[in-house]
Amino acid sequence: MGADIGAKRERTRIEAAATLPVYRNRREGLLTDLYQLTMMYGYYKSGRMNKRVIFDLFYRSNPCDNGYVISAGLEQAAVYLHTLRFYPDEITYLRGTGLFDDGFLRHLEDFRFTGTMHAIPEGGIVFPNEPLVRMEGRIFELQLIESALLCFINHQSLIATKAARIVQAARGGLVEDMHPTSEFGLRRAQNADAAIFGARAAYIGGCASTSNVAAAYNFQIPVAGTQAHSWIQSFDSELEAFRAYAEAFPARTVLLVDTYDVLRSGIPNAITVGRELRLRGHDLLSVRIDSGDLSYLSKEARKRLDAAGFHATKIIVSDDLDEDTIRDLMLQGAAIDGWGVGTALITAKDCPALGGVYKLAAEEEGGQFVPRIKVSENPLKVTNPGKKKVLRFYVDGMANADLIMLDEEPTPQGEPVHLFDPVHTYKKKTIADYAVRELLQPIFVDGEFVYDLPTIEEIRSFARAELQTLPRETLRPKNPHVYHVDLSLRLWELKQALVARMRL
Amino acid sequence: MGADIGAKRERTRIEAAATLPVYRNRREGLLTDLYQLTMMYGYYKSGRMNKRVIFDLFYRSNPCDNGYVISAGLEQAAVYLHTLRFYPDEITYLRGTGLFDDGFLRHLEDFRFTGTMHAIPEGGIVFPNEPLVRMEGRIFELQLIESALLCFINHQSLIATKAARIVQAARGGLVEDMHPTSEFGLRRAQNADAAIFGARAAYIGGCASTSNVAAAYNFQIPVAGTQAHSWIQSFDSELEAFRAYAEAFPARTVLLVDTYDVLRSGIPNAITVGRELRLRGHDLLSVRIDSGDLSYLSKEARKRLDAAGFHATKIIVSDDLDEDTIRDLMLQGAAIDGWGVGTALITAKDCPALGGVYKLAAEEEGGQFVPRIKVSENPLKVTNPGKKKVLRFYVDGMANADLIMLDEEPTPQGEPVHLFDPVHTYKKKTIADYAVRELLQPIFVDGEFVYDLPTIEEIRSFARAELQTLPRETLRPKNPHVYHVDLSLRLWELKQALVARMRL
Repeated sequence: MGADIGAKRERTRIEAAATLPVYRNRREGLLTDLYQLTMMYGYYKSGRMNKRVIFDLFYRSNPCDNGYVISAGLEQAAVYLHTLRFYPDEITYLRGTGLFDDGFLRHLEDFRFTGTMHAIPEGGIVFPNEPLVRMEGRIFELQLIESALLCFINHQSLIATKAARIVQAARGGLVEDMHPTSEFGLRRAQNADAAIFGARAAYIGGCASTSNVAAAYNFQIPVAGTQAHSWIQSFDSELEAFRAYAEAFPARTVLLVDTYDVLRSGIPNAITVGRELRLRGHDLLSVRIDSGDLSYLSKEARKRLDAAGFHATKIIVSDDLDEDTIRDLMLQGAAIDGWGVGTALITAKDCPALGGVYKLAAEEEGGQFVPRIKVSENPLKVTNPGKKKVLRFYVDGMANADLIMLDEEPTPQGEPVHLFDPVHTYKKKTIADYAVRELLQPIFVDGEFVYDLPTIEEIRSFARAELQTLPRETLRPKNPHVYHVDLSLRLWELKQALVARMRL
Repeated sequence: MGADIGAKRERTRIEAAATLPVYRNRREGLLTDLYQLTMMYGYYKSGRMNKRVIFDLFYRSNPCDNGYVISAGLEQAAVYLHTLRFYPDEITYLRGTGLFDDGFLRHLEDFRFTGTMHAIPEGGIVFPNEPLVRMEGRIFELQLIESALLCFINHQSLIATKAARIVQAARGGLVEDMHPTSEFGLRRAQNADAAIFGARAAYIGGCASTSNVAAAYNFQIPVAGTQAHSWIQSFDSELEAFRAYAEAFPARTVLLVDTYDVLRSGIPNAITVGRELRLRGHDLLSVRIDSGDLSYLSKEARKRLDAAGFHATKIIVSDDLDEDTIRDLMLQGAAIDGWGVGTALITAKDCPALGGVYKLAAEEEGGQFVPRIKVSENPLKVTNPGKKKVLRFYVDGMANADLIMLDEEPTPQGEPVHLFDPVHTYKKKTIADYAVRELLQPIFVDGEFVYDLPTIEEIRSFARAELQTLPRETLRPKNPHVYHVDLSLRLWELKQALVARMRL
């Protein structure tokens, strides 16, 4: 997933991505807040539009009490930047607002993204205050793109993270393919994009499949699904409904057993149809329970399926599940082989927004970048100034600490590194015998796409590998150990100096 | 907003809506759960695909502890049904899954929506268990559309309702144009559709404007916005930043005053620029405060602006607002003229999904519809069977109760009506001297679009008029009075009979 600047293949791959139905014909020039356009106009009117600046995209606290975030949404952001332009009817609309002059509108007509983007690849684990994206370019362009970049990356990172929480609970750990979770949330998603890009993010976060056919088609995600209660209802009896389904899909028969009564009707009828399938050389793949007490019902269903010789038939459950309910069901020894999760996953119900922000970090003056800071009454909201990079130190193969430093500082090459907490500075440690990795990768250089877009399977595998390097204490779903993200001494000193100067 | 079946103008209007950029080229055939397609295949294989059925779309409980829901999303649903088809590459994908035979795929190639839809118009107030949408048609079509219909209507109705809660708090009542609320949530929305359709729904729910330019353009919503902290930061001083903005937008100057210190820097600099604007014949429109204690800061800012003669300059605030914070600020007498609300509104943060469902209500047998029911361990989840209509009774101009009845029952014409609670049947009342309105309107008849799509302003006005007919007790944001939604005696008896028959 490294960069390979200038190679032909990469440019082909972003073009290919941009022709996926879900990206094709998207018109996203106006997908911005009006104040971006009024500021752009102000920069234009005051002769500052070509001033070069650096913006960081980062978030300040992990969602859902989690210990980390899985970065996602970069592919969508890259396609957006690559295809970003203004169409004639959009220019006409903007003219009609009466806010802008013709010279400005001509700049929009000619608009193309010409900036430089570095980002943490999708599937990467990130922590508060780390730049997930570092943009460098003309303020005129970098201001426009703030809203859409945040929207895409906030959303997909949120859902990938929520999925990882749910999958971790469902698996009882990080073991792949045990107790797979399927994403079922389309009907409760916050409109179509949330469903489609959310299903993509859920897959990155560890889900095994989605019920959403559009997401499956666009992003090559495994697709899953069988029948609803309306299927059962539309036949005169449950048995007849089961038989008709087994007739249509003999090799993939999954039966919904809770329309009338799981144990008195659904399971006995499923066993009947299972026996009929065996006469035709097939086996009953699984049954699904969508209501009732899933612990009790799954255990009873397991006993009866086993007693009838259907040991291989899986039990899948759904019904307003989230990571807490799943964990409790696992702890009670529920006989559940797979999970369908809808609302709680696709909306990240208990924490439906990741609070990513996009802040000015530096501005070019006299040919070099001068660090900028935003102070705040709230000390946690003071930004980290300057052009920065993010390093991750591994000790014995496990992530040990991250360090944000100025880009111009040399990356440590094995010498002992002294780390200290940027708020509680008495907390210090020194590490040696580490491996170090730089997290930000080049995506665009001066408008040219230079990144090798990974496949969805590569991204998903990367996320899983990343999770396996995290201390178990940081993976804990409630009150996780806070992973260390420190500032280099030079960056910390720069920050203190700028704060002191700002406080009048 | 009534129906005018067959007239030319209406067909023109859905065509016009379908060419809005946000609808154009949407490919939504695959925007469905796989089980809809596998059930369709089962219906096809078992010779049942043309069986006529009725489905109801309804929800079971109000979101956010609210007393009602504002129906929204119908225009999106109508455009979806009108443009719904499968493209060759989508058919190829489906063939590749190995699930379907060629005969079935040919039915998808020819797919057009030919059903009949009745719906409660957008902006209408609805309550639990009332059909917001009643679909009638071939089970083959009506099964496919479940997921997307639910997605669109759940999402937009949720956000319209959340907006109404926020706007009600902000206004201190239902008075229009006092303390307007602007929707600011693009960057935290669950992807682009959630931002754009969410801004539309927020406007229907009573917001005065949006910051989202794409939403404003597509749906003719007023657009609002000025500058961010990055604008202020990118100048050497706040005063210089304010002057440059006033230079670019002299007639619409709004200044963000909290980048450094609201009272020591922002307000004094705003007054300086306000005086300079007056010399040029303009007035300082407003200041915006985005952090700190908004009650204290707004009151202090008001005093200083007034003392300097800027009585007409408005104070606008933002900063993670929701209806509870807004209500508390109003109660503390904060000097706030307008509100910008982001995350809490665009995600409906405390209740990010409306739990709409879509249930089989009847099936044609021997040329007539036979009622169907879904029973459940949970009595509240037992569905209302049959083809139904929804009546609202008004007494003294106020909504008094709703009645769900079988469509074939005559609508009361002034005779006394006896109502009883469908669960606690001893709760009864009789109303007379009422006006009655039928809520479900025809949208499609046998695939033909027969509805006059209202403008967004008409929808918004309708929502406001609807809210004004609700008892104040039902508008209460916490623990509202439960509005009565009763079943006709015939419907109630039918339901009891079907439940009794189902319980084996």
